[in-house]
Amino acid sequence: MGAAHSQAWRTAGRFFDLPWEPDMAVLCGRDAGRARAAAARLGWREAETDWKALLRRDDVALVDVCTPGDTHAEIAVAALDAGKHVLCEKPLANSVEEARVMVAAAERARARGVHAMVGFNYRRVPAVALARRLVEQGRIGEVRHVRGAYLQDWIVDPEFPLVWRLQEERAGSGALGDIGAHVVDLAQFVTGQALTGVSALTETFVRERPLPADAHGLAASGGTGRGPVTVDDAALFVGRLAGGGLASFEATRFATGRKNALRLEVNGSLGSLAFDFEAMNELEFYDGTEDAVTAGFRRILVTEADHPYAGAWWPPGHGLGYEHTFVHEVADLVRDLAAGTGPSPSFADGLQVQLVLDAVARSAAGGSNWEEIGS
Amino acid sequence: MGAAHSQAWRTAGRFFDLPWEPDMAVLCGRDAGRARAAAARLGWREAETDWKALLRRDDVALVDVCTPGDTHAEIAVAALDAGKHVLCEKPLANSVEEARVMVAAAERARARGVHAMVGFNYRRVPAVALARRLVEQGRIGEVRHVRGAYLQDWIVDPEFPLVWRLQEERAGSGALGDIGAHVVDLAQFVTGQALTGVSALTETFVRERPLPADAHGLAASGGTGRGPVTVDDAALFVGRLAGGGLASFEATRFATGRKNALRLEVNGSLGSLAFDFEAMNELEFYDGTEDAVTAGFRRILVTEADHPYAGAWWPPGHGLGYEHTFVHEVADLVRDLAAGTGPSPSFADGLQVQLVLDAVARSAAGGSNWEEIGS
Amino acid sequence: MGAAHSQAWRTAGRFFDLPWEPDMAVLCGRDAGRARAAAARLGWREAETDWKALLRRDDVALVDVCTPGDTHAEIAVAALDAGKHVLCEKPLANSVEEARVMVAAAERARARGVHAMVGFNYRRVPAVALARRLVEQGRIGEVRHVRGAYLQDWIVDPEFPLVWRLQEERAGSGALGDIGAHVVDLAQFVTGQALTGVSALTETFVRERPLPADAHGLAASGGTGRGPVTVDDAALFVGRLAGGGLASFEATRFATGRKNALRLEVNGSLGSLAFDFEAMNELEFYDGTEDAVTAGFRRILVTEADHPYAGAWWPPGHGLGYEHTFVHEVADLVRDLAAGTGPSPSFADGLQVQLVLDAVARSAAGGSNWEEIGS
Amino acid sequence: MGAAHSQAWRTAGRFFDLPWEPDMAVLCGRDAGRARAAAARLGWREAETDWKALLRRDDVALVDVCTPGDTHAEIAVAALDAGKHVLCEKPLANSVEEARVMVAAAERARARGVHAMVGFNYRRVPAVALARRLVEQGRIGEVRHVRGAYLQDWIVDPEFPLVWRLQEERAGSGALGDIGAHVVDLAQFVTGQALTGVSALTETFVRERPLPADAHGLAASGGTGRGPVTVDDAALFVGRLAGGGLASFEATRFATGRKNALRLEVNGSLGSLAFDFEAMNELEFYDGTEDAVTAGFRRILVTEADHPYAGAWWPPGHGLGYEHTFVHEVADLVRDLAAGTGPSPSFADGLQVQLVLDAVARSAAGGSNWEEIGS
Repeated sequence: MGAAHSQAWRTAGRFFDLPWEPDMAVLCGRDAGRARAAAARLGWREAETDWKALLRRDDVALVDVCTPGDTHAEIAVAALDAGKHVLCEKPLANSVEEARVMVAAAERARARGVHAMVGFNYRRVPAVALARRLVEQGRIGEVRHVRGAYLQDWIVDPEFPLVWRLQEERAGSGALGDIGAHVVDLAQFVTGQALTGVSALTETFVRERPLPADAHGLAASGGTGRGPVTVDDAALFVGRLAGGGLASFEATRFATGRKNALRLEVNGSLGSLAFDFEAMNELEFYDGTEDAVTAGFRRILVTEADHPYAGAWWPPGHGLGYEHTFVHEVADLVRDLAAGTGPSPSFADGLQVQLVLDAVARSAAGGSNWEEIGS
Repeated sequence: MGAAHSQAWRTAGRFFDLPWEPDMAVLCGRDAGRARAAAARLGWREAETDWKALLRRDDVALVDVCTPGDTHAEIAVAALDAGKHVLCEKPLANSVEEARVMVAAAERARARGVHAMVGFNYRRVPAVALARRLVEQGRIGEVRHVRGAYLQDWIVDPEFPLVWRLQEERAGSGALGDIGAHVVDLAQFVTGQALTGVSALTETFVRERPLPADAHGLAASGGTGRGPVTVDDAALFVGRLAGGGLASFEATRFATGRKNALRLEVNGSLGSLAFDFEAMNELEFYDGTEDAVTAGFRRILVTEADHPYAGAWWPPGHGLGYEHTFVHEVADLVRDLAAGTGPSPSFADGLQVQLVLDAVARSAAGGSNWEEIGS
Repeated sequence: MGAAHSQAWRTAGRFFDLPWEPDMAVLCGRDAGRARAAAARLGWREAETDWKALLRRDDVALVDVCTPGDTHAEIAVAALDAGKHVLCEKPLANSVEEARVMVAAAERARARGVHAMVGFNYRRVPAVALARRLVEQGRIGEVRHVRGAYLQDWIVDPEFPLVWRLQEERAGSGALGDIGAHVVDLAQFVTGQALTGVSALTETFVRERPLPADAHGLAASGGTGRGPVTVDDAALFVGRLAGGGLASFEATRFATGRKNALRLEVNGSLGSLAFDFEAMNELEFYDGTEDAVTAGFRRILVTEADHPYAGAWWPPGHGLGYEHTFVHEVADLVRDLAAGTGPSPSFADGLQVQLVLDAVARSAAGGSNWEEIGS
Repeated sequence: MGAAHSQAWRTAGRFFDLPWEPDMAVLCGRDAGRARAAAARLGWREAETDWKALLRRDDVALVDVCTPGDTHAEIAVAALDAGKHVLCEKPLANSVEEARVMVAAAERARARGVHAMVGFNYRRVPAVALARRLVEQGRIGEVRHVRGAYLQDWIVDPEFPLVWRLQEERAGSGALGDIGAHVVDLAQFVTGQALTGVSALTETFVRERPLPADAHGLAASGGTGRGPVTVDDAALFVGRLAGGGLASFEATRFATGRKNALRLEVNGSLGSLAFDFEAMNELEFYDGTEDAVTAGFRRILVTEADHPYAGAWWPPGHGLGYEHTFVHEVADLVRDLAAGTGPSPSFADGLQVQLVLDAVARSAAGGSNWEEIGS
């Protein structure tokens, strides 16, 4: 995450006309040596090991929080209270309670012109932004179905070690919070509708894994042993959208062969949209108002000058990659901050996703019965 | 359905070496004139309007039931009791109770060497049969995920008329029984595992439709009025497989742009399989035991001589179509009958699917809470 | 070919309203026993070993010529002169000279109301017929580029035997006449334009192969030896269309992994079309008059009621297969004969393709220099 | 090009361990104001308008030539003679003669430890580098067929203005030199074989275009007039590879709907490879040694740690974009320079491509007859 965010801060101003030029002041890490090396490599002027020190610096106007989820709330709230803008990685927090505290801090800060954004970077894939625009323009009509999935396979091997992402105390949850959060946000962003309730299943297929050799994963409990996986490997749920549509979601790290298949299909009364991050420069669009003889899902290469973000880059057909989602995120954030408008997605948007994840977890824990999503 | 089955009976013996030569004795329909015309067109020697008369004929050894679901039980049970083999279209019945009666009749009949088969024709797509074979051979390991969907869009237009498939008393259910039954059977067939419980949602997006002009749709209630849609337009559910895997399903007639997208993806501990009927001659297979450098979903054109069914047809790359699923069904059935073995899928298999549909309907009616699938 | 044509004759009248009902009188083969068995299996009333006997029969109105190319001219001319309609498989003949004699016979016959058709069955793929319609309607504007290929791989293995298709005296040429003929016809049919000249390369990668065990392949020259391959394994050429467009073609039996990839892409000033027989129910269409923001190649599932041929079959999304190209061919032929109009493609169309193949062969033999296509 | 190269110089050292840290000294342009603005935006310390001044600077060790082709020879030769390493954009030059002069300069320079590279950036797409590796490892056996195409559509509109790329005196040629050069290089790189001869066609579909308003396009000849297009819009050719394979190529700016479709398919005796830059993170690979039952083109997502270049970036499935080809180019170049080894592709490689383009042009000008490729 640090590498991706740093590349974004270094690059945004090179391709987008930004009102402010990002100044990469200081990188903060737990280990002084590693932090210095990272700062040098990633282009930060200085390194620091105490995140609280950042908040006292005059040359820091914004804190970009890329730590594991269990530290988001403390850091983000302190930063906002110290008058620093905050960009916080998703999921916003490891619990609804923490998220609420963060939203409150963001609201306090906003009153003082200090802003907070949560990093659902996939909203800034040009194809996703185009999907949102087409829905807003009414091109697919009323939303009937959402089909969301985020499929990965990096822990299919039962000998893959027990890294921090597989420990509840650090990560909060497993596939659900890590990648489920993304696909839930994507679906709500593209449709412009919130989920209102869910019935869910979660599962941990491999319940014990080798402790990692690397101290950065887990404090080794005496050597070469194994430890319990305390998060979900996969989460599935069906739900309803505020507008009356039906939705299904799946987040898993056990979809063998699927590497980063963040997928969204939306069927409306007038048309449909389909996206898969594994082909991130493409959006499929079916226009149901077209004559049936020539209607078909069209593969739009989202690289035209008039497509969202694409005009800042290369000629048509010269695609972008994963890192550009962060460049776009940073560019939008800087523009919003300079304009004094609240960036999007806000911490409130992050809380709303957290409420969905919470309902999913409650449903899964409660025998897969229906759970309403609070507010 | 009548046209597809007739083509199958006419064709099976031309391409497959069958122990018995099908003799197309008599087509039965409600209207004498139409039945005669259909018989002539479809290649049946005679026409008949009273299905009970068929059961008294010596030249009828098998009854192929292609009527709406509300008549399956009566006809199939009578036929079996009269000593006729039965091929019955899916879903087996409109209720679990009827399905149980049919299974009982099939068991009675079997004791006398009379057999019953339910027409889940998609099992006979070569790509699907190959998927089953690969699972049986252990090529994908332990099943972790099933992702099933059957997506159509033929009633997206709210002015599409209220045909019999949209009336509960005739069709039993809507998308659920019509196409959901297929995808549930497909998933259970390919994995070799039954679903054990579900949480489900159903919805009827368009609740009133014009009465059809055509008397074969609905008895017109005085002309140009509208009537209530009494079945589901869409059904979604998540569930668990007997072997510990997770499954999600969706059956809908509102997936704008999807015409006949019967899709199944199975992720196992060693590999994955993916199928979409809109590209029915292809099976995607990911072999996770392959070196990561050259691993990838491979698109198998299931048209090789060593592929299921394909050897009877054309050279590699010369694909088959929808109707061939019925040709294969009939060929397998005739061989099984000649061998005296019970054909597959049996009425018991049909009942099992019915039990799943019943649990889905109960869950959807009961606030989307979890429902165990009985036996 | 015999099996495919027979299935077409048996089936056409079941799905299309034909003015005449095909009566499958007699199948002719070289070996009496095999001919009788084939007739029984394929649905012909009688069998015959002397093709000339067919021409004297009153119950034969049409001769369907499915023999190797070296016999087309003799049989077709005799049949036409005897007043029998003729459907002749492609390529029309093994040489331009033979093709000219056949065209002359067809013209003589036409004066007497007797008609001839050459069997370029791929014109009757619904997606191809739709492509032709869209070009005729001006949807892609002026044709700039044609990209044709017919890729197979059935003789990649150097131990594949020396069957008749690899012998010049029987087959005339190799990939060029067998599959190159199809793709040339397809390109000219879809664009409505003839090729005017070519520069070509051909190659025989494996120049010697094992003699086939089977006497129907090659007269065995004393047992287990090897013999020379006397036809091309592959042919490539670039050329010009009458309307000013550029074209490239490739026909090969050495495209490892491509099973029956008959591909055509046409780029016009207003749009583009792309087809691949391995996905025969799909046509890709790019509408260049569309706003760039939503333009994209759309995958049309050519299974709608308003698509060519598709209305006679199944609901949308229920695809057709290879054999249906022959069913459509036969249905069109019967309708044309009943109407007294000359069927299409005519023998003159077949000659035009032969002239292209001849120019290709001359160019390849003459150091890949440019050769004009005669008329 | 300047923007892409600058991003590469800024980024390479952030993701790759480079022995030397690039120091972006000075950007040179014709207009002082624009050069200064570009330098500031793109991250260069200084700006300059006289390229010869660069050669006298001690803080310039390498000159990156991104100018139109008519200036490559003069600048590159002078830079090499001044002891500066050179990275020169493709095509190497506008004529074989110029290219030979450049190769001679590169050879002189090499004797003094000064090196030259030509910028065929597409070699550094991970999927292309993987394709090369698989060919080298013998995974596809002997090369039978190469199918290369570079399809764009940016000048389909006849009102698109007469920019410098459409003028022979600046660009040398049209689609041929601009994009044909890339696909020829790609084919020769991946197969490891040179083309030995060609038969070619070229065409200019739109022969006159509006003069551009912008002085940077064309010196306006008195205002709003039109001028002649003096380069090819499209070039097609067939050819032979040194190893006995056959090849076809197409380069066009008139393939409506194709935005940047740089495609390569290679069929070998044991397998096949297919690539399309529009899906640049994927490589299709068919392994013909696999059992036919499970053989199929596999879509490899070339984002694994063990794939070329990919390990320096993100987790599997998180794709790269167009600009990364330049990052990889620069990283490889810096490593080679530090190691004192000649970078690849060399100016001699660039000359070889030029010789192919020259033979294509000669063939096209000479009635599409065969032309041998010199050395």
